[in-house]
Amino acid sequence: MTEAQSDDAYLLRPVGRVLSPLTDAASAPRQGDEGAPDAWLVFDPQVERALGDVRVGAELLVLTWLDRARRDILTVHPRGDETRPESGVFSTRSPHRPNPIGLHRVRVLAMDGLRVRVADLEALDGTPVLDVKPVLGAAGER
Amino acid sequence: MTEAQSDDAYLLRPVGRVLSPLTDAASAPRQGDEGAPDAWLVFDPQVERALGDVRVGAELLVLTWLDRARRDILTVHPRGDETRPESGVFSTRSPHRPNPIGLHRVRVLAMDGLRVRVADLEALDGTPVLDVKPVLGAAGER
Repeated sequence: MTEAQSDDAYLLRPVGRVLSPLTDAASAPRQGDEGAPDAWLVFDPQVERALGDVRVGAELLVLTWLDRARRDILTVHPRGDETRPESGVFSTRSPHRPNPIGLHRVRVLAMDGLRVRVADLEALDGTPVLDVKPVLGAAGER
Repeated sequence: MTEAQSDDAYLLRPVGRVLSPLTDAASAPRQGDEGAPDAWLVFDPQVERALGDVRVGAELLVLTWLDRARRDILTVHPRGDETRPESGVFSTRSPHRPNPIGLHRVRVLAMDGLRVRVADLEALDGTPVLDVKPVLGAAGER
């Protein structure tokens, strides 16, 4: 490989959706540990086996597609604060970025079949879920 | 929103590529802190401004598209160890999953324009880079 090649593209297919009382980006917390309400992750039947070992109490990373974000924004004022100088989005957690993938650390509160109740998720209602991963422990515990 | 809707799809466009001595999945470490060599992230000129505030020493999360993974695998033996029972992929860090997005915590060693030298990246040579985010500090430091 000798240079960046940007003409490829890849198709994401959501595996579920967020069901949350948060419907408005302006009033949503900026991070999940800054006052997000509990929410449901509602998974598609096709991924039931992928979900089969998720347990109450687990700490998970949820990846979402931030479908209300803009992909053409490369610099922002951090946390929307115009008194702070603009910063490249790769140095911020702004939802606006070329591939608007959200990364959320959540805790599982309850399981109900294809529905998973989680704490600390700041994603808006209807946000597509792309992937779920466990939080990694120390190397010896993997 | 009343139910999961899986008929939507979203198009990812890579913002760069991994340049690494790792070319073979069988010999790559399973996590970046398990002996990965240093690697370059080579970004496309279109995202130069997004990259503008990344500095040497920064701890970053790099999101990649694991283009050699399988999307039809829903359960795996953790870490490929067949003595361990199969587990749903949402409870593992297996690259094989419906949306094979890789999540890598790296440290910036050097910057050279659109090229960023990083430690602890286990992704294979040529892997598309999707996004870069800062590791979040404590809530008071944001």
